[in-house]
Amino acid sequence: MRRVAFVLFPGLTQLDLTGPWEVLRRLPDVRLYLVWKTLDPVVSDSGMAIVPTATFETCPRCEVLFVPGGPGQVECMEDGEVLGWLQQQGAQAEWVASVCTGSLLLAGAGLLGGYQATSHWMSRDQLARLGATVVNQRIVVDRNRITGGGVTAGIDMALELAALLSSEEEARRIGLQMEYDPAPPFGPGSPECSELEMIVEVQRRAKALLTRRREATEKARVRLGLTD
Amino acid sequence: MRRVAFVLFPGLTQLDLTGPWEVLRRLPDVRLYLVWKTLDPVVSDSGMAIVPTATFETCPRCEVLFVPGGPGQVECMEDGEVLGWLQQQGAQAEWVASVCTGSLLLAGAGLLGGYQATSHWMSRDQLARLGATVVNQRIVVDRNRITGGGVTAGIDMALELAALLSSEEEARRIGLQMEYDPAPPFGPGSPECSELEMIVEVQRRAKALLTRRREATEKARVRLGLTD
Repeated sequence: MRRVAFVLFPGLTQLDLTGPWEVLRRLPDVRLYLVWKTLDPVVSDSGMAIVPTATFETCPRCEVLFVPGGPGQVECMEDGEVLGWLQQQGAQAEWVASVCTGSLLLAGAGLLGGYQATSHWMSRDQLARLGATVVNQRIVVDRNRITGGGVTAGIDMALELAALLSSEEEARRIGLQMEYDPAPPFGPGSPECSELEMIVEVQRRAKALLTRRREATEKARVRLGLTD
Repeated sequence: MRRVAFVLFPGLTQLDLTGPWEVLRRLPDVRLYLVWKTLDPVVSDSGMAIVPTATFETCPRCEVLFVPGGPGQVECMEDGEVLGWLQQQGAQAEWVASVCTGSLLLAGAGLLGGYQATSHWMSRDQLARLGATVVNQRIVVDRNRITGGGVTAGIDMALELAALLSSEEEARRIGLQMEYDPAPPFGPGSPECSELEMIVEVQRRAKALLTRRREATEKARVRLGLTD
């Protein structure tokens, strides 16, 4: 039996978490936990409240640690309770996984130093500032770390992780159950396939968040002893 | 301002709902509601509890009605309160949308009779029994009905709907924000691309559910006056 801890936090991007959850819950002999400080509902950045099933205190030692991203990652970067728990679970987990800016949190907890990793395309520069070696891929596996790109990359990352935990056949069965034959109706949503104007507009809308995120990254650098 | 009602029910498949939620919440001037009979958390088929933000009584008239699928759809097919509310909202909505077996619920509420529609590949035969004209596509639009295939099809369906509600440019911007450049690591999860053995195995694991679903479909046929 494999236990997987999914970390919740206020202001998470819910699909970062719900995509991988839907994949991994279909593995045989698996038990999933939604973990936060208390059992009170945790509200995502879009107002969807999800109820934790365990607290940092009651969650058992898990074979897999998974961290989603989202604007709330910024506050977590300065939260010793969150970082301490990630460190503790991450140190003994078989697999340490993230999607989107969850990798910044893993790095903030010192779990990605010297590892190849990825993040949301708008935040990869900050992952590099936190001691990881950034690889511009949708899924990056380095030893027992597996990280995914922005939001929807979590589904692909989790299928890869499902194969690593079980078998490729099991992962393909899950893909068929979920009818995962994606067909983006207006083409792929990647910076490589988008016009410069659109990239600039998306960055403009995220500007305030990216500024706060950079500040948190720089503070974490100091804490981690990563001086220039 | 556009209002979107997302129906919750016990035993829903959470990604059916959370995929479209993540897309549509990124539209400008949109308000999303999570609707159920009470405001108590609603538990998905995989044990994830999501908190409603409105009840059938307090939810306003919405421009968009969205229904997810999942094993709990079977119980809803015989729930007059659910079907009555869907009928009422669906009758006046600008857009009526579903993903996966949510289309069976829409059909059960009499909202897909004579419409082209789709569903999860394992349940399309039952959609045909409920008066809809089944189209074997991932996304089907017929007048103001838009339906998606199984589970992950909700993301594609919602991007199409986002373009219909706003613009193609806005939908592409959302795709870029969500880094929606899918890359299934072991190929597409569709029956067309899977070996017969795997299809049979997936159907075998779903057998008990499919039997219950067929019984509910046949009862609904009688209620809807669809005799052979």
